[in-house]
Amino acid sequence: MKDVNTRVLPGFMELLPKDQIEFNKIKQIIAEEYQKFGFTPIDTPVIERSEILLAKAGGETEKQIYRFNKGDNDLSLRFDLTVPLARYVADHYNDLTFPFKRSHIGKVYRGESPQRGRFREFYQCDIDVIGHNDLSINYDAEIPAVIYSIFSRLNFGKFTIKLNNRKILAGLMNSLGLGGQSKDVLRIIDKSSKISQSEITEEFKKLDLNNDQIKLLADFTAISGRASVAIEALKNMAIADDEFVAGVNDLKLVTDLMRSMGIDEDYYAIDLSIARGLDYYTGTIYETTLDQYPELGSICGGGRYDDLASYYTDEKLPGVGISIGLTRLFYQLNEAGLIKTGEGIVADVLVMPLGQDQVVKSFEIAQNIRESGINTDILLDDIQMKKRFKYADKKGFKYVVIVGENEIISGECVIQNMESGDKENIAIDKIAEYLKNKLN
Amino acid sequence: MKDVNTRVLPGFMELLPKDQIEFNKIKQIIAEEYQKFGFTPIDTPVIERSEILLAKAGGETEKQIYRFNKGDNDLSLRFDLTVPLARYVADHYNDLTFPFKRSHIGKVYRGESPQRGRFREFYQCDIDVIGHNDLSINYDAEIPAVIYSIFSRLNFGKFTIKLNNRKILAGLMNSLGLGGQSKDVLRIIDKSSKISQSEITEEFKKLDLNNDQIKLLADFTAISGRASVAIEALKNMAIADDEFVAGVNDLKLVTDLMRSMGIDEDYYAIDLSIARGLDYYTGTIYETTLDQYPELGSICGGGRYDDLASYYTDEKLPGVGISIGLTRLFYQLNEAGLIKTGEGIVADVLVMPLGQDQVVKSFEIAQNIRESGINTDILLDDIQMKKRFKYADKKGFKYVVIVGENEIISGECVIQNMESGDKENIAIDKIAEYLKNKLN
Repeated sequence: MKDVNTRVLPGFMELLPKDQIEFNKIKQIIAEEYQKFGFTPIDTPVIERSEILLAKAGGETEKQIYRFNKGDNDLSLRFDLTVPLARYVADHYNDLTFPFKRSHIGKVYRGESPQRGRFREFYQCDIDVIGHNDLSINYDAEIPAVIYSIFSRLNFGKFTIKLNNRKILAGLMNSLGLGGQSKDVLRIIDKSSKISQSEITEEFKKLDLNNDQIKLLADFTAISGRASVAIEALKNMAIADDEFVAGVNDLKLVTDLMRSMGIDEDYYAIDLSIARGLDYYTGTIYETTLDQYPELGSICGGGRYDDLASYYTDEKLPGVGISIGLTRLFYQLNEAGLIKTGEGIVADVLVMPLGQDQVVKSFEIAQNIRESGINTDILLDDIQMKKRFKYADKKGFKYVVIVGENEIISGECVIQNMESGDKENIAIDKIAEYLKNKLN
Repeated sequence: MKDVNTRVLPGFMELLPKDQIEFNKIKQIIAEEYQKFGFTPIDTPVIERSEILLAKAGGETEKQIYRFNKGDNDLSLRFDLTVPLARYVADHYNDLTFPFKRSHIGKVYRGESPQRGRFREFYQCDIDVIGHNDLSINYDAEIPAVIYSIFSRLNFGKFTIKLNNRKILAGLMNSLGLGGQSKDVLRIIDKSSKISQSEITEEFKKLDLNNDQIKLLADFTAISGRASVAIEALKNMAIADDEFVAGVNDLKLVTDLMRSMGIDEDYYAIDLSIARGLDYYTGTIYETTLDQYPELGSICGGGRYDDLASYYTDEKLPGVGISIGLTRLFYQLNEAGLIKTGEGIVADVLVMPLGQDQVVKSFEIAQNIRESGINTDILLDDIQMKKRFKYADKKGFKYVVIVGENEIISGECVIQNMESGDKENIAIDKIAEYLKNKLN
């Protein structure tokens, strides 16, 4: 071997073809579902001016940014798709129609410490609805309808879309007189589903919360489950704070709409322990988990925010959106055995000329099959029979059309079903039709 | 406005939604055609170790590389998809099945001086067939079959796939005793279609070529057109050099196969003036031009090479492939008026509830339409009628389904054809069917 390190960089995902095909299928389904609901795809540069990214970043994110100079420019690789969206909307404001429903599937970069399941380059698949000045809360119900549609189709088993509302959390803090400590309290609430009740109590005590406050927070975070039941329980808490009440009403409106849209009630729930780390959410928040794989954590999260682009424009741009971290999700699904690796093929059919004299006829046969809508490969190397079938086996074709001298004379080809080993003789002009029937 | 520059960086393409949709359509067609012929998609990181990229780069390319340090790593953004392919094949050699047919559509980076139609971030859409030790020349005929399929479907008017063979050029140099000057001579041949015959002669004279040599080169570059005619003319030159003869035979075999595959002979031609700048081509070379837009230059080029990954592995990996520079192509097509901008829509249908009381019913109607396979948007903001229709107009929906109080009572909605302005009353449970018929 040459003295060059050809391994992919640590923290970067690079898939073998069969896995890549499965990855692309998932990406394609997400893209199609986004379009089904009328979200317009956009594409922005991976490289941005550093000042754009740094206006929003901070703390850990800022340290992780890939930043460099080229000529006189201070440049960085985007670390999410939200900041580019904010810049895009601020810049193209006059050319966009609001509400602006956009989807964006692209790679983002974070120089994290490499660890299992964490990636430095990963795909995000985002949708957002951006309003100008106002945006109806109805859109907060459309977002989970998209999530429902995607994960139903992806078929990774039962999932739950968990909803909460930041106003409820903020209102609760106010009513407890904890406004100033709300960040610390939210941090504890956010992990309450992962640690025990006594640990939570300990954490709250560290913040000097009194027993009444802790009792109320414990009652609060214990509320979860079916929307109608949970909302009733929230109302029964009889917290008089305006923001709390507004949050409960929003949550009721959103979940009522979801129900009337025919989203199966088993597939969404109120979960008051979800807070979402990012500061900028102000209303509805979402997380989605796979019931059988809680260890995967949230596979799709997002929420409502008051102002997308305050760093870049004075226009008020409220919005609601979600993001799917596809690279991490794929890695986790693969680890959990939910990706049927090895089944990925691009072409179902291989046409195999047995010698150079059959190449012309084979090209013709392959083209006929393609024209009937079937992706078709053709093996053009003149190699041993054993090697030919090794190619067919390893690549996983479903059918192989064998084109030999006798086949051309007789006008019939042998078609081998690679799974069963069965062979059939089919007239050359019927091959496309035969395969189409078999593959449907 | 805030004091932040939100404009996209110079040399980077960022499209408005309607253009983006057209861009994506072209990208999707290219991806589908690549798969139709059995090319497996791969995806590699945008960031590579600098040593990987620099092993291959050099001269202008090296200066253009985006290179930076992160932690202890000397990193660079890839400048093409060929070097990552070479690294991928070298690294995953044991897990791949040869011939390895891969497609790759992704962004690459070159810090060129910004000028019209030149981009610093651009999509390349590549296919290559990589053999192990050997690769049949039949694959050299499959590649133009893919080009033909793509550009026929893209419908940008008549195009010509121009073919040449490096062996012919090299053999000619040998027979003229110009082996040592072949680079300079090829450079002149490469631009012979762009400058006059007398200018070419001048250039050759500068290289101290004698009149006989210049005459022969002039006769040679004048040969072009239909494959059968051009190959006859090449044979009539009676150049005894082995490499020349081998190149003519290769070109004959490839074009004979293309003809027998049913590729329209008007769509390909021999052009002995194409040489392709890159040193590593060793056999068949391709360029593709749009007949009505010669000023666009080659929109798809590539060729055959002896060894893909000699920098990274001792395995011999011959291959043949092409690349479409999609970002530049889109820019040029747009400038030439070949992109029907403004027609791009993601959803054909908009469902428009006239008030909050009609939102639930509208969600249900929209979902029914989606389930019949039609992408459908829904306008959920409670705004003035004028603004609602402005949204429908500007986004370019074909049909708007109006859901008002009366519509729900009567069980019939007004569906407006946005182009003609015609309105029809359709029973709610027939809307999906109605739209499906109209849109097919």
